[in-house]
Amino acid sequence: MVLYLVGLGLGSLDDVTVRGAKALDESSYLYLEAYTSVQEDLSVNFLKERYPTKEVIEADRTMVESACDDMLERAKNSVVSFLVVGDPFGATTHADLFLRAKEMGVEIKIFHNTSIINAVGTTGLQLYRFGQVVSIPFFDGTWRPTSFVDKILENFQMGLHTLALLDIKVKEQSVENMIRQRPIFEPPRFMTVNQAVEQILSVLSDRNLQEDNVQQVEKHILTPQSLACGVARVGCKDQVIRFGTLEELRHFDFGRELHSVIICAPELHEIEESFRQLYSK
Amino acid sequence: MVLYLVGLGLGSLDDVTVRGAKALDESSYLYLEAYTSVQEDLSVNFLKERYPTKEVIEADRTMVESACDDMLERAKNSVVSFLVVGDPFGATTHADLFLRAKEMGVEIKIFHNTSIINAVGTTGLQLYRFGQVVSIPFFDGTWRPTSFVDKILENFQMGLHTLALLDIKVKEQSVENMIRQRPIFEPPRFMTVNQAVEQILSVLSDRNLQEDNVQQVEKHILTPQSLACGVARVGCKDQVIRFGTLEELRHFDFGRELHSVIICAPELHEIEESFRQLYSK
Repeated sequence: MVLYLVGLGLGSLDDVTVRGAKALDESSYLYLEAYTSVQEDLSVNFLKERYPTKEVIEADRTMVESACDDMLERAKNSVVSFLVVGDPFGATTHADLFLRAKEMGVEIKIFHNTSIINAVGTTGLQLYRFGQVVSIPFFDGTWRPTSFVDKILENFQMGLHTLALLDIKVKEQSVENMIRQRPIFEPPRFMTVNQAVEQILSVLSDRNLQEDNVQQVEKHILTPQSLACGVARVGCKDQVIRFGTLEELRHFDFGRELHSVIICAPELHEIEESFRQLYSK
Repeated sequence: MVLYLVGLGLGSLDDVTVRGAKALDESSYLYLEAYTSVQEDLSVNFLKERYPTKEVIEADRTMVESACDDMLERAKNSVVSFLVVGDPFGATTHADLFLRAKEMGVEIKIFHNTSIINAVGTTGLQLYRFGQVVSIPFFDGTWRPTSFVDKILENFQMGLHTLALLDIKVKEQSVENMIRQRPIFEPPRFMTVNQAVEQILSVLSDRNLQEDNVQQVEKHILTPQSLACGVARVGCKDQVIRFGTLEELRHFDFGRELHSVIICAPELHEIEESFRQLYSK
């Protein structure tokens, strides 16, 4: 039959498109991608309530990456929907799934939706002034990959904004549970704007201390006083947008997940400046 | 009452979100932004058929930029929807409208949707590997602005893809009609992938001829043999995706509007390469 790849957008199940909702109605199986889905009203339980006659399956990352063939086999004889928060092509994993479906001769249809990549326009920062997107990983002890700062600086120097997507840790096992092979998982962790800004500032500070980098850092002039914009729960009812210096955002409380950060270009255009004022109060 | 800014997505009216559709149902006035809306099934007539009891108004660019206060006045006492193809924050004009509503104390709500900025992921090219978006304007005689090529080259050198949005000309007047103040407009024009590629290649060729630029051009190594991807009607039923060298895409027939072009990074990742093969047949 068919596999529907359905983007859910960013808010609730009612942010699916009308055509996407029809696809879900038609389906016998609903696979909910659990890796990026953290909204309560986009949970497996919520889906089961909404669709009591359908089989609802939580698809964690391992399943999507390694055990997706079972799902694709089902899609040969049934209507199967794979539900993704945001847009279906937001993650490499889903591009891979698309290719695998094609290889196996399974018909596949895409239902696009908004994702943070375009919804970030709601800050008033113009989408055509964004450079490459970066991801900020949780630092862990001495594990401090810093290439995201290089990309932020590249964009900044080119007069562009940078959208930074923040790390999510779900289904993590403690070392002890891993060794004992106990299927006990740590509570999910979501990087906050505060943590992201903290990590950016600590990398900048480290570099400043290394003498041979001082000149480079001065040229970029990205400092704790540079402008950024923190966002939380974009597209949800309790969305928060807040402009401030990196130093200010380090302490501003954005509430629960998900958060993202934009490191602003050195200069704002007129309309962007008006939005900054609107969202600085 | 309220102004709803409703993103329509890229396909048909059924690509609005379920919440967006409810907003339209609630509204007394529907303003359809005509500047970027070129789909037949997203026309004023189609909306009038679907919503026979509502007042449907075509909002051209002039109206949105200068005469939007009437619409906002209406939104003080009625439920008004302003319908935009793609996402509401895709254009500076709408950011401006948002600010104006805030100034006038009009309540405003956003309904996000997909736009070419994120739906371009459907090509298999990874969104985090895109640099700054560019717009390619129609060359007109000696009017040949070429800064878009500089941005493409910047992205290319950084190992990034470039999404190029192509010019749309609607409600254009001939010089004669303008002088005589006759409200007669030329048929709308949409830049094709072929025209866009033609313009890119002609700029590269011009630069190659200027001796002092030869070295720079050689460093970038963007040539007629470089890889690109043309797309047409993304998100619609008859969507076309086609990879090829710039030279090849210059002649490939993508059918009717809307078209966009991606100038690929010098190297593709493994999954991207699989998509290239899929969409080169």
